[in-house]
Amino acid sequence: MKLKPLDDRVVVEIKEEENEKNIGGIIIPDTAKEKPQIGKIIAVGTEEELKKLVKVGDNVLYSKYGGDEFDIEGKKVKVISRSDILAVIE
Amino acid sequence: MKLKPLDDRVVVEIKEEENEKNIGGIIIPDTAKEKPQIGKIIAVGTEEELKKLVKVGDNVLYSKYGGDEFDIEGKKVKVISRSDILAVIE
Amino acid sequence: MKLKPLDDRVVVEIKEEENEKNIGGIIIPDTAKEKPQIGKIIAVGTEEELKKLVKVGDNVLYSKYGGDEFDIEGKKVKVISRSDILAVIE
Amino acid sequence: MKLKPLDDRVVVEIKEEENEKNIGGIIIPDTAKEKPQIGKIIAVGTEEELKKLVKVGDNVLYSKYGGDEFDIEGKKVKVISRSDILAVIE
Amino acid sequence: MKLKPLDDRVVVEIKEEENEKNIGGIIIPDTAKEKPQIGKIIAVGTEEELKKLVKVGDNVLYSKYGGDEFDIEGKKVKVISRSDILAVIE
Amino acid sequence: MKLKPLDDRVVVEIKEEENEKNIGGIIIPDTAKEKPQIGKIIAVGTEEELKKLVKVGDNVLYSKYGGDEFDIEGKKVKVISRSDILAVIE
Amino acid sequence: MKLKPLDDRVVVEIKEEENEKNIGGIIIPDTAKEKPQIGKIIAVGTEEELKKLVKVGDNVLYSKYGGDEFDIEGKKVKVISRSDILAVIE
Repeated sequence: MKLKPLDDRVVVEIKEEENEKNIGGIIIPDTAKEKPQIGKIIAVGTEEELKKLVKVGDNVLYSKYGGDEFDIEGKKVKVISRSDILAVIE
Repeated sequence: MKLKPLDDRVVVEIKEEENEKNIGGIIIPDTAKEKPQIGKIIAVGTEEELKKLVKVGDNVLYSKYGGDEFDIEGKKVKVISRSDILAVIE
Repeated sequence: MKLKPLDDRVVVEIKEEENEKNIGGIIIPDTAKEKPQIGKIIAVGTEEELKKLVKVGDNVLYSKYGGDEFDIEGKKVKVISRSDILAVIE
Repeated sequence: MKLKPLDDRVVVEIKEEENEKNIGGIIIPDTAKEKPQIGKIIAVGTEEELKKLVKVGDNVLYSKYGGDEFDIEGKKVKVISRSDILAVIE
Repeated sequence: MKLKPLDDRVVVEIKEEENEKNIGGIIIPDTAKEKPQIGKIIAVGTEEELKKLVKVGDNVLYSKYGGDEFDIEGKKVKVISRSDILAVIE
Repeated sequence: MKLKPLDDRVVVEIKEEENEKNIGGIIIPDTAKEKPQIGKIIAVGTEEELKKLVKVGDNVLYSKYGGDEFDIEGKKVKVISRSDILAVIE
Repeated sequence: MKLKPLDDRVVVEIKEEENEKNIGGIIIPDTAKEKPQIGKIIAVGTEEELKKLVKVGDNVLYSKYGGDEFDIEGKKVKVISRSDILAVIE
């Protein structure tokens, strides 16, 4: 089963443990007001421009307030918009 | 009798039991603030671009706050906008 | 006497009894928060694109909060915008 | 003395008695939340598109909250925008 | 000394006495909620389209809430935007 | 050391004493609700259109609520947007 | 490890000590309501236009309310938008 997001959206798998650990040296302090989160892209929307910017498998830093969580096949995921993706973690 | 939505709208049949069960492994926790819902598209709007993205019969995940419910021939339906469709479930 | 709406507006005759009855199997529950209404278009605005989408005589489902009611020759009518028309009932 | 409105504006003479009477069969109930009003256009703005839609002498139904009243040569008038004109009364 | 407004702005000299008297038959009642004012244009912005609509010396009716007052060489003036100019008084 | 503003911004040096005195006959009353201020442009943004409208050395009247103050080499300055510049003082 | 910001965003390293000291003669008073901050750009977004305006290594003055802080490899960083960059410090 797959989710195919429309337009400028991506589906990210939320990396909760890693959010707590420390991906590639990134630490997100609890004191941050608009605390960003780390997730792995598992589906990219239909927008052509978006497909040039991100791909399935990319770890991204995204704005916490974008989208909402649900579970898909045991994974915590979120559908977020391009404007909520802050940066790709390389 | 049919509903023909204008512009970028679609009519979805709300899959309530399935929202409660578990379509294709998707679980929407009650704790989700902006809880998405699952529905089946029964009519697609007049916008050409929209017709390339979704079709009648598609199961979609959509934002709960888009549109409002009514009954049509015994089915619970909702008219929602393209911007409220988060993803097609494949 | 006629009303000629400007731009993307239409004049709809409000089908109150039918809203209470059940047009073509459509039931609008009182519990709906943004309860849509059913009306018959009696005049279409000057916008070319709009004229391709709806015509005089069409029954439409429209958002309750669009426009305001007045009486014209004994009929309850409302001037609403294209964006308030949810769907044509066929 | 004349008023020449800029852009998409028109000057309407407010037909108060007629608003109270009943122009061409139109009755505006006091219960209407966003009660429209009836006025006669006495000057049309500089926008070319607007000039194709309305002309001096037209009776129009307009949104009550558009513009503000003042007196000009003994007449009650209002400068309103195209977006506040709901329909021309024919 | 002169003020050269940018873009779609004009500088108007506020005609206070005349606002109180009665320019060309115009009376602005104190009861008007969004009371317009009368002023004389003393400088026109750099926007080409604006220059076709108004010129220095024009008396204009403008929205009271546009811009703010200051004194220049003993005259009360205001810098207002094109969207605040309701009409030219001819 | 220089500040090079991006896009449609300019850096102005705030002329506080002159704001209190009276530049070229301009007096800004304390009673003005949205009191404009006088400043001298010391850097112009990268936008081509802006460069045609203002230049370094221009005294400008700008909206008080645009931007925020800081000190640079002993001068009080502010980074403001084109939309906050009301007029050039000539 | 690197962050590759999307679209019109940049990653800045926050120069806290220098914010307290005095970069190139710039002093940001504590009394400033919308206190700007100084940072060094460590990654530039994918937008072509943005790449012409700023580059890695540039010290920039940016609006404090843009983006949020986190730590990356021991440095305090922030992902901010082009519209939050006030000026490049040269």
